[in-house]
Amino acid sequence: MAIAQKIGGFIESSSWIRKMFEEGARLKSIHGNDNVYDFSLGNPSIEPPGEFRRYLKSIVENASPGVHAYMPNTGYPHVRKAVADFVNDEQNLAAGEEDVIMTCGAAGGLNIILKAITDADDEIITPAPYFVEYGFYADNHGGRLITVPSGEDFNLDIEAIEKAISPKIKAVLINSPNNPTGRVYPEEILMRLGDLLRKKSLETGRTIYLISDEPYRKITYDGIRVPSVLRCYPNSLMATSYSKDLSIPGERIGYVIVCPEAEDKGLLLQALALANRILGYVNAPALMQRVVGGLQGVHVDVSEYARKREMLCDGLSDFGYRFVKPEGAFYLFPQSPVADEVAFVNALQEERILAVPGSGFGAPGYFRLSFCVDDRVISDSLPGFGRALRKFT
Amino acid sequence: MAIAQKIGGFIESSSWIRKMFEEGARLKSIHGNDNVYDFSLGNPSIEPPGEFRRYLKSIVENASPGVHAYMPNTGYPHVRKAVADFVNDEQNLAAGEEDVIMTCGAAGGLNIILKAITDADDEIITPAPYFVEYGFYADNHGGRLITVPSGEDFNLDIEAIEKAISPKIKAVLINSPNNPTGRVYPEEILMRLGDLLRKKSLETGRTIYLISDEPYRKITYDGIRVPSVLRCYPNSLMATSYSKDLSIPGERIGYVIVCPEAEDKGLLLQALALANRILGYVNAPALMQRVVGGLQGVHVDVSEYARKREMLCDGLSDFGYRFVKPEGAFYLFPQSPVADEVAFVNALQEERILAVPGSGFGAPGYFRLSFCVDDRVISDSLPGFGRALRKFT
Repeated sequence: MAIAQKIGGFIESSSWIRKMFEEGARLKSIHGNDNVYDFSLGNPSIEPPGEFRRYLKSIVENASPGVHAYMPNTGYPHVRKAVADFVNDEQNLAAGEEDVIMTCGAAGGLNIILKAITDADDEIITPAPYFVEYGFYADNHGGRLITVPSGEDFNLDIEAIEKAISPKIKAVLINSPNNPTGRVYPEEILMRLGDLLRKKSLETGRTIYLISDEPYRKITYDGIRVPSVLRCYPNSLMATSYSKDLSIPGERIGYVIVCPEAEDKGLLLQALALANRILGYVNAPALMQRVVGGLQGVHVDVSEYARKREMLCDGLSDFGYRFVKPEGAFYLFPQSPVADEVAFVNALQEERILAVPGSGFGAPGYFRLSFCVDDRVISDSLPGFGRALRKFT
Repeated sequence: MAIAQKIGGFIESSSWIRKMFEEGARLKSIHGNDNVYDFSLGNPSIEPPGEFRRYLKSIVENASPGVHAYMPNTGYPHVRKAVADFVNDEQNLAAGEEDVIMTCGAAGGLNIILKAITDADDEIITPAPYFVEYGFYADNHGGRLITVPSGEDFNLDIEAIEKAISPKIKAVLINSPNNPTGRVYPEEILMRLGDLLRKKSLETGRTIYLISDEPYRKITYDGIRVPSVLRCYPNSLMATSYSKDLSIPGERIGYVIVCPEAEDKGLLLQALALANRILGYVNAPALMQRVVGGLQGVHVDVSEYARKREMLCDGLSDFGYRFVKPEGAFYLFPQSPVADEVAFVNALQEERILAVPGSGFGAPGYFRLSFCVDDRVISDSLPGFGRALRKFT
């Protein structure tokens, strides 16, 4: 094989996912896009807020010389300051602009963090179900992703994490609100996680980092707020993006913020800046940095997602589907009525409904529905959800 | 050390570069920005062409729904088609849109190529002097950068490359127009390189890729055109960007094009798409993809760089500096009058002139001057260049 063997293996092992996408595309070509109910993608259905469009226009119209030039690898100082000020206000912190690195989305942020801290065969622990890209991200930088089961209702299982910590531990990686479960980890459990990592850092003699991936931080329901990981543990980093806040995932803009109390923080920040450069990101896209710098705290109307959540949860609940109601993000992660959830996902496809099997998230027996879709997709698909379930019960 | 040991080592070993930058910053704080002649950075001094600003405005003003959403990891099909059409025209090829992957600049392009093809300890050969990031890029993906000397006047030394090819060879990486030398490799030598790689692929039983990094492709002088690598060897890939064409390096937009005749091309293209996704780029920034898609063939007025080149070359030549006149890009790479070029670069700093030692490019005994600066910087600095040289001759 001319390409890298590992990449060849990744392509091979993801072929079932590709087959599912191809089947979806086939259904769409037969029945038309509007007659296939696609719950498989996490592409925000809401348009960017008016403020975004207006501010982008004003920035483009009033461009001064050099606005598309290189800037420091960590981003524009004034944008980093705007971010730090916002996060300080939101999370009651005292971060400086130096604690913020602008990145190519949260995905870019997670990769520079892992590049900065991971030595060969270091272990990164994450609770399952988990965002499938984490395995690749850890592997990119020579690390190994270790998954541990979640607790009840997809909450963190601190004992399971403790048991999984070996002398090769480098970080615990969490995702809140969680993709695919919608769980927001409560402050009390983050505090317990922080205590565990303090204890284990002493025991192992290694700095254990806590990395929190929070791209859905602004998308929460029923008044729930995402607690501050940075206040629960000093050696913590948060990665987030504007992809869902502003419905601009194609633009690749986000940031990493390091806890102001992190040990050896100066070296960690240098490592993150270097990683941003040498991984080939160089810097987060210039124009979008300027735009988000002026839109701190602006986000899409979450009540739209809340309405879709109600429609889908109520509809599925009436049929007897079992699930934990999501507290954030725009995913529902119901139990499959049969252990082999791929068989059930195939049955949904017969109803022209596209879903993703839980195996793709390290959680067989479940399936994921993205409800960032038109209301019509939800209402029109419900009878099909009913028919599919009846085949298995 | 809490951060990765390797990254710690990188920070350590680049500390002399940082010291130089700090010294430059110190000089600027004492003498004022205008009184320090900074030839150390490759940040284009020319503003983006008017077409760029106009087209960006019209795209932003006429945004339709979904323009900031996710698209395929490889980029918008219509943009990829526009790129393929342009390259076909320019290089007399028959590439399809499927042969083009939009990337986060040429740096992103090189990283996805190396991720897609590199197994552990594979060797990537590059002629020195070379762009220092190549060493990091190869290492990012488990590869090893092997440098070989250049031939006369910084041309490719085919015999040196042949001698360096081991059974671990995976690719030869070239950069034309070259940073730091300004050399454009002529077609005849690229043909010889292609013949060598065909022969060595047979001998080693491995597909050897030829990767050409061409971010300065549009910046050439005296009517020189950059030959098409893709026409010289089938298993070739070109990475380039709009950073210098359009003076928008902060926006991180470029592409990779694969030779239409590459073997196992389908698998290679899948590997590149996967690499773009899992390295965390996900996709090239959406808005800038649309912009460059409509600006194929548009570039800054190269005659401005040509004028600066003349000013600097004439001035230095009059003092007796020795150099090869650059055929492209915006760098001059003169010989240091003493073997220890860092000592000479320090002497230039005493004249408030900032340059980069050749050691940073694997070529001690030389130093690099970026002439993408205001004309004034060149004219005002010349007396200092004269004085510094006289100290050593």
